[in-house]
Amino acid sequence: MSQPAETTVSNGTDPVTIDHEQRRRDGLARYAEIMGVPHPAPQSPRTATLIDFVFAEIWSRPVLTRRERRFISLTCAAATDSLSTLADLLYGALASDEMSYAELGEWVLHYAVYCGWGKAETAERILDEQWQRLHRARGELVPPRPEHPQTTVPEDQELRKQGGEQEFRDTNFVPSPARGVPYYDDGILNFVFGDMWKRPGLSRRDRRWITLACVGVDDTVGPIRSHVYSAMKGGDISYEEMREMVLQFAAYAGWPKGSLMQQTVDEEHTRVVTEGSQS
Amino acid sequence: MSQPAETTVSNGTDPVTIDHEQRRRDGLARYAEIMGVPHPAPQSPRTATLIDFVFAEIWSRPVLTRRERRFISLTCAAATDSLSTLADLLYGALASDEMSYAELGEWVLHYAVYCGWGKAETAERILDEQWQRLHRARGELVPPRPEHPQTTVPEDQELRKQGGEQEFRDTNFVPSPARGVPYYDDGILNFVFGDMWKRPGLSRRDRRWITLACVGVDDTVGPIRSHVYSAMKGGDISYEEMREMVLQFAAYAGWPKGSLMQQTVDEEHTRVVTEGSQS
Amino acid sequence: MSQPAETTVSNGTDPVTIDHEQRRRDGLARYAEIMGVPHPAPQSPRTATLIDFVFAEIWSRPVLTRRERRFISLTCAAATDSLSTLADLLYGALASDEMSYAELGEWVLHYAVYCGWGKAETAERILDEQWQRLHRARGELVPPRPEHPQTTVPEDQELRKQGGEQEFRDTNFVPSPARGVPYYDDGILNFVFGDMWKRPGLSRRDRRWITLACVGVDDTVGPIRSHVYSAMKGGDISYEEMREMVLQFAAYAGWPKGSLMQQTVDEEHTRVVTEGSQS
Repeated sequence: MSQPAETTVSNGTDPVTIDHEQRRRDGLARYAEIMGVPHPAPQSPRTATLIDFVFAEIWSRPVLTRRERRFISLTCAAATDSLSTLADLLYGALASDEMSYAELGEWVLHYAVYCGWGKAETAERILDEQWQRLHRARGELVPPRPEHPQTTVPEDQELRKQGGEQEFRDTNFVPSPARGVPYYDDGILNFVFGDMWKRPGLSRRDRRWITLACVGVDDTVGPIRSHVYSAMKGGDISYEEMREMVLQFAAYAGWPKGSLMQQTVDEEHTRVVTEGSQS
Repeated sequence: MSQPAETTVSNGTDPVTIDHEQRRRDGLARYAEIMGVPHPAPQSPRTATLIDFVFAEIWSRPVLTRRERRFISLTCAAATDSLSTLADLLYGALASDEMSYAELGEWVLHYAVYCGWGKAETAERILDEQWQRLHRARGELVPPRPEHPQTTVPEDQELRKQGGEQEFRDTNFVPSPARGVPYYDDGILNFVFGDMWKRPGLSRRDRRWITLACVGVDDTVGPIRSHVYSAMKGGDISYEEMREMVLQFAAYAGWPKGSLMQQTVDEEHTRVVTEGSQS
Repeated sequence: MSQPAETTVSNGTDPVTIDHEQRRRDGLARYAEIMGVPHPAPQSPRTATLIDFVFAEIWSRPVLTRRERRFISLTCAAATDSLSTLADLLYGALASDEMSYAELGEWVLHYAVYCGWGKAETAERILDEQWQRLHRARGELVPPRPEHPQTTVPEDQELRKQGGEQEFRDTNFVPSPARGVPYYDDGILNFVFGDMWKRPGLSRRDRRWITLACVGVDDTVGPIRSHVYSAMKGGDISYEEMREMVLQFAAYAGWPKGSLMQQTVDEEHTRVVTEGSQS
């Protein structure tokens, strides 16, 4: 507490003082850039703080790309049933050209797996509405939906499940679950890892962000632990990136859910480091 | 892994190979049968996978009846705030005549107890809209709502709570909670077990499916454990049926929530078996 | 069980018998009083039970004020995405003059912090709609939104975080978290305790009720524990009040979420008492 202010900033870019009026202007500019439309003058406590904190202070941070922050934020908006925020985030993602309509179609499917088919139906309706809104705003015709690529999963069920077992191990870094139990056999091996995680259209790192936001909103302790662990274990996401993810996640999912996520990130980082030093 | 394919199928009806085009046709046919209306040609990753996996592979499975799968699915849709999926599932349930409007009115009330009054208000509005939609589709007038039966709970509060204590023990297979704490006394004993679980209109097995889906979506570890245990302990639901429930549940609530449910089902099955062998 | 009925009532005002027809009339009268509009004749199982139990038996209880029950209930309605119930509760709160529009604007912001910005955007839209509905019902013009007060947080970042650390300790009764981690440093210290909890417009006790309902619906075990503990530790909320809160909370969030809340209230009460007797 008696140290000089300069030593307490958490990274090299943090300012020592913040001019509140400048911060407001920065937040409004960043909102327009990210969301593709300007924000009306903030008049309520919520909108003022959204601009001053979430847009001026959070979205401007380094370590994660804007596209990655979009994946985290829009998955949180969908998973928390924040339909108007989701609509605006999807519009911004499409308007920025940082995510294509086809990628967001894959996002809907991955989200369906982690948050359920019903919630994904709503998300897809909103995606399609925003896709139309963007073309109207640009004075363009809405192009026909691109042909959906046929799955490349083998028709031989044993080959398919063997592929699911391999993908499960490659993704999770633990042994694949036993056959014979409907949830594991027909669900996890046959479908989730036998098909979903192997699909093209999104990178594994993309799928990591989406999955982390889904399990984080879900508060499912076991899956949070396993996905935080495996993302760092496999080197898809670094510890520094994970910590930055927690902040973006907490802003969109609420600070209590961020608390378990932060604690798990720290614990699983220790586990990964300990395992590394033992091997 | 080196075993012949025939030995790896998880039950006698699983196919060894799956023709993907036939699967698509099967899924579309089953969707129309279950939902009471045809599905448009699947064009997005989500809709294609919904037909190929959820309808072709999950809804076709044995062990649970279609009506039971409906209870699990529509409770998940409601609890996850998937309002358009909920609407379509309610329409399908009414159109199939597998559930009556009166039974679904009881479902709304049981759901209110386990997921809260606010969510149930939304569910009832959607039920009523689908009830009207069905009559319009059939070119019929919407019949007046049947008279709501008067409760049969005793007016004597001590008798009512004693009845709640008895019902609590009969349903949960553990001692009833202490009097004097508002949540237990006025809530659990007086209301949840003193009235709700004793109502006619749904069987105890029906209420088990609804409750399991509610607590599963809620991620409330203690109630998941106690309801999974008591459903198997009392013989209302077998271990095989429970495992099938987890798969249907995971498809509608997301695989992370299915993970805790599957783990709990296995642990509580062991507990029930152990207790049985000791008695 | 063989004790006379008089000894089993949980508090001095509980009746020994309840006339069901009188209870229905009481519930309807109380609904109109709390919600600012009459309820239509209850015809479904849900609406009948809502009147007979939630309004006749729960809202009439002592220990908490009606305004406090409103905070708990409307936070639950928002957090569980019960949008029509939320709308009616906000209308009732404004119509009763027990909460001002400015206080509810602060409620939206506090809720944004604990349940996420997306959900709060929906809540604010509904608040504004009900604010307009109330003025229409009164035949009045909607007044312009009051000027949003400028934040009083220091522009010097080190001072701001030191203030956050102090507020964190004063609110939570545990040491403040380490600097340098984005979630703790830029989120919890800089924002949640460096700004939000220090704002005027709601008392700390008000913020306690809102926070408890948010973390309770979230099922976030750690934050439930820490907020239940600190509310009793600091003397903002007594054990008796906490137990009454659990009942109101369970009615609006569902009984399974109430179960963890009740258990935590009992455990943390024991902890607070034990610490008190040791000091």
